[in-house]
Amino acid sequence: MYIHGYGERESERLLAQAASVVRFLHEDTRFPPGSRVLEVGCGTGAQTVSLARNSPGAEIVAFDHALASLARAIERVAAAGLSNVELLHADLNALPLDAESFDHVFICFVLEHLSNPIAALVLVKRLLKPGGTVTVFEGDHGSAFFHPHSEIAHRAIACQVELQRRAGGNACIGRELYPMLVRAGYDAPCVTARVVYVDATTPDLVDSFTRKTFTGMIETVREGAVAAGIIDAATFDAGIRDLYRAAEPDGVFCYTFFKGVAVKGTSS
Amino acid sequence: MYIHGYGERESERLLAQAASVVRFLHEDTRFPPGSRVLEVGCGTGAQTVSLARNSPGAEIVAFDHALASLARAIERVAAAGLSNVELLHADLNALPLDAESFDHVFICFVLEHLSNPIAALVLVKRLLKPGGTVTVFEGDHGSAFFHPHSEIAHRAIACQVELQRRAGGNACIGRELYPMLVRAGYDAPCVTARVVYVDATTPDLVDSFTRKTFTGMIETVREGAVAAGIIDAATFDAGIRDLYRAAEPDGVFCYTFFKGVAVKGTSS
Repeated sequence: MYIHGYGERESERLLAQAASVVRFLHEDTRFPPGSRVLEVGCGTGAQTVSLARNSPGAEIVAFDHALASLARAIERVAAAGLSNVELLHADLNALPLDAESFDHVFICFVLEHLSNPIAALVLVKRLLKPGGTVTVFEGDHGSAFFHPHSEIAHRAIACQVELQRRAGGNACIGRELYPMLVRAGYDAPCVTARVVYVDATTPDLVDSFTRKTFTGMIETVREGAVAAGIIDAATFDAGIRDLYRAAEPDGVFCYTFFKGVAVKGTSS
Repeated sequence: MYIHGYGERESERLLAQAASVVRFLHEDTRFPPGSRVLEVGCGTGAQTVSLARNSPGAEIVAFDHALASLARAIERVAAAGLSNVELLHADLNALPLDAESFDHVFICFVLEHLSNPIAALVLVKRLLKPGGTVTVFEGDHGSAFFHPHSEIAHRAIACQVELQRRAGGNACIGRELYPMLVRAGYDAPCVTARVVYVDATTPDLVDSFTRKTFTGMIETVREGAVAAGIIDAATFDAGIRDLYRAAEPDGVFCYTFFKGVAVKGTSS
């Protein structure tokens, strides 16, 4: 279940997120001309556009179950003038796609929302040709640390982790990509960690990542966390203030993303 | 104050540490032929050897205040057959070195032990020629996270952080390199974060880093932490067990180091 909501502000946050980290996360994700690539859970198409731009010769099929998000993705792909993307309204558990019909599968910021991410990895393996690859990106909220250190800011972050857990997801899934790919039966899993380090020498990242992407995301759970009795509003707000404090000129913010790539073996 | 002790086992731990992370940390640290480089707090010479090897044309002056460590550094430099290293027994606050006599200063895993790291950065700035650079490496124990997650393992890590704090140091100093270099009056500070990601695909790193370097380091504070009443022995031991658990075949361990480089301006 997606816990951030689907409103206009959330859409802007996703855009800031894609803009700030996309170069860094996707720059080494390229699929060869002629290959068929499936994007699982494309949402509003934030990653789809860069995926299609970075692999202009590949044929991208992207799907999502949320109609409103998919409508936004269709607009965005059209606005980018991309002709190598097909968008589908579909559910992971009932995909109208043939077995062994894709060369590569791309899954970005999706597994964290699923109650059984390993089952999802197994499902999409069916769609891959033998020798095809799955590429997975996830963050990990347990990787966030910052200067000045603040316990109360960590408590605000923990609210998001707890709400995502109650919704069946896992906001600290990044560190688990390796064992998940192994358990899903993929071969040769290779996971790399990508730390986003932000200080005042990169003011664009301070604004787009520390403020708008990360702190903005934590802010979206304020009402849910207070309503669920996980935290009181004053404590939550103090935690958010301390996260914004890390975006001041002497502040530092760190967060780690993970990229996992693995192969569908010929016998799996 | 150095809280890990100076025994034989500690010396082996430092060697494992240097071997496991040194390639990764130092590979882009090279000083040009003919330059004079000062290494501050060389300890047993673990970093000195790779520093001198990576910059064979540079003239390295390395010092430490601990005689036993320095004796080991002298042995190690001799065993490596290095001829571009001069070792000094000296204290940072009374260095027998001329102002503006070095092109570069190198400080690795030292600032974390000092009660006033900014004062140390100011002190060594005096020794740099205008336009010379300082290069600082530090870890950050707040950056450690692992799979399976364990609160009790984080409590064992917190013992080391607390003991280092009581000794006047800061085990979470890595995130502060940028503001410290600014406050010490250096120009153009540039900090990069380097995450060590360890899973079963790199068994050498599992052994040398997760087990011997990190968990081994936390283990060294067991008696001190129990004696100081920070934790009981059973809880500490359970935390250590959980850190070793992250070195099992489905485990993952992450830790972030920081490298900071900054310039002594012509007016500072």
